[in-house]
Amino acid sequence: MLENNNFDEVVLKRHTAREFDPEITISKGELLQMITYATKAPSALNMQPTRFVVAQSNAAKEKIAAVAGTNAPEILSASAVVLIGGETDLGPFEEDLFKRAEAAGLLTDRAIEHQKPMIENLVATFKENQQALREFIIQNSSLAAMSFMLAARAYGYETGAMTGFDHEKIIPALDLDPNHFLPTLLIAVGKPKSAPDSLYRIPASKITVFK
Amino acid sequence: MLENNNFDEVVLKRHTAREFDPEITISKGELLQMITYATKAPSALNMQPTRFVVAQSNAAKEKIAAVAGTNAPEILSASAVVLIGGETDLGPFEEDLFKRAEAAGLLTDRAIEHQKPMIENLVATFKENQQALREFIIQNSSLAAMSFMLAARAYGYETGAMTGFDHEKIIPALDLDPNHFLPTLLIAVGKPKSAPDSLYRIPASKITVFK
Repeated sequence: MLENNNFDEVVLKRHTAREFDPEITISKGELLQMITYATKAPSALNMQPTRFVVAQSNAAKEKIAAVAGTNAPEILSASAVVLIGGETDLGPFEEDLFKRAEAAGLLTDRAIEHQKPMIENLVATFKENQQALREFIIQNSSLAAMSFMLAARAYGYETGAMTGFDHEKIIPALDLDPNHFLPTLLIAVGKPKSAPDSLYRIPASKITVFK
Repeated sequence: MLENNNFDEVVLKRHTAREFDPEITISKGELLQMITYATKAPSALNMQPTRFVVAQSNAAKEKIAAVAGTNAPEILSASAVVLIGGETDLGPFEEDLFKRAEAAGLLTDRAIEHQKPMIENLVATFKENQQALREFIIQNSSLAAMSFMLAARAYGYETGAMTGFDHEKIIPALDLDPNHFLPTLLIAVGKPKSAPDSLYRIPASKITVFK
């Protein structure tokens, strides 16, 4: 349930949590609601490659913890751990996406004339250039990941994002298909057990130049 | 000025704009306020590699448009175009970051004991592995980019994110230092001139699996 609809507070007071109350459960329905915010993030050519694997069971969390080194405590105490990643076989998926958009009455002329040929070119490039595909998935899934983390706060939870996990071993650990999923980020979600650290942020003026 | 503090509306009604009212100007101060929201995004080990180059002048926008192909109209009509990217020489920068955190009273024990050696290892890895550095910057800058796009909406603007630009040529075009900046995303900001397209989004349930 949306508990905090104050944009300013959701974004400016977000802190990474490292320890959660293990007694809290979050329903599948509520997790899907939070993921819906993530689906509204923009993606290149609206290709929407981002995918979510939600570990709720203790068995699944233990399998993730086993390949996540020092991050194990936050994974095991979290209400859910969301593995964010991307679909790596984008060709057939795109056909389906256009059909779905048409069925929903949201297939624009721009999409047909402009995006479709660009998508076909991009998918062909990805077949030759695995690195370009990796970067595409990292970029798009990270945009969605940020919206998900903010939505979790709006729903009254806090998150802890982790890149420190074995990106190859997590695939068999969670019984995922390596031909369809590239993992990019792990996000623990729950009610923080202790007040998260306030971390230093560089002032905007120090990292911005105007032209 | 914060015009829309409704989290739900900011996130769920965001649409990519492709044409802006060229008469609108946004002050540097307001752009820095919006970038401040982006600085609150999490980053790996709190390393904050994201950097912002804001093109406000017509001369700068024209230089970007010249290396951005079909995206030229949205670049030229936008009030500002923000080139998001990352600092690529993270070693010396990290020393400064720890000093700044200490001066602000926000240097945690965890940062000294846990993060500092991990950062040193990571920076050493990046010296050997340029691809790992690229992916690190793409991931972290994309998290910040999403918060920036949402902040722009909260401030009453709309954005259009673009990956379709010449990532190498934009460096000399904007007189940036290739030893310190890797570009990842262009974001046009302004008041949309026409109602943006509502694009189809895959339902969360179709792209999520539970474990």
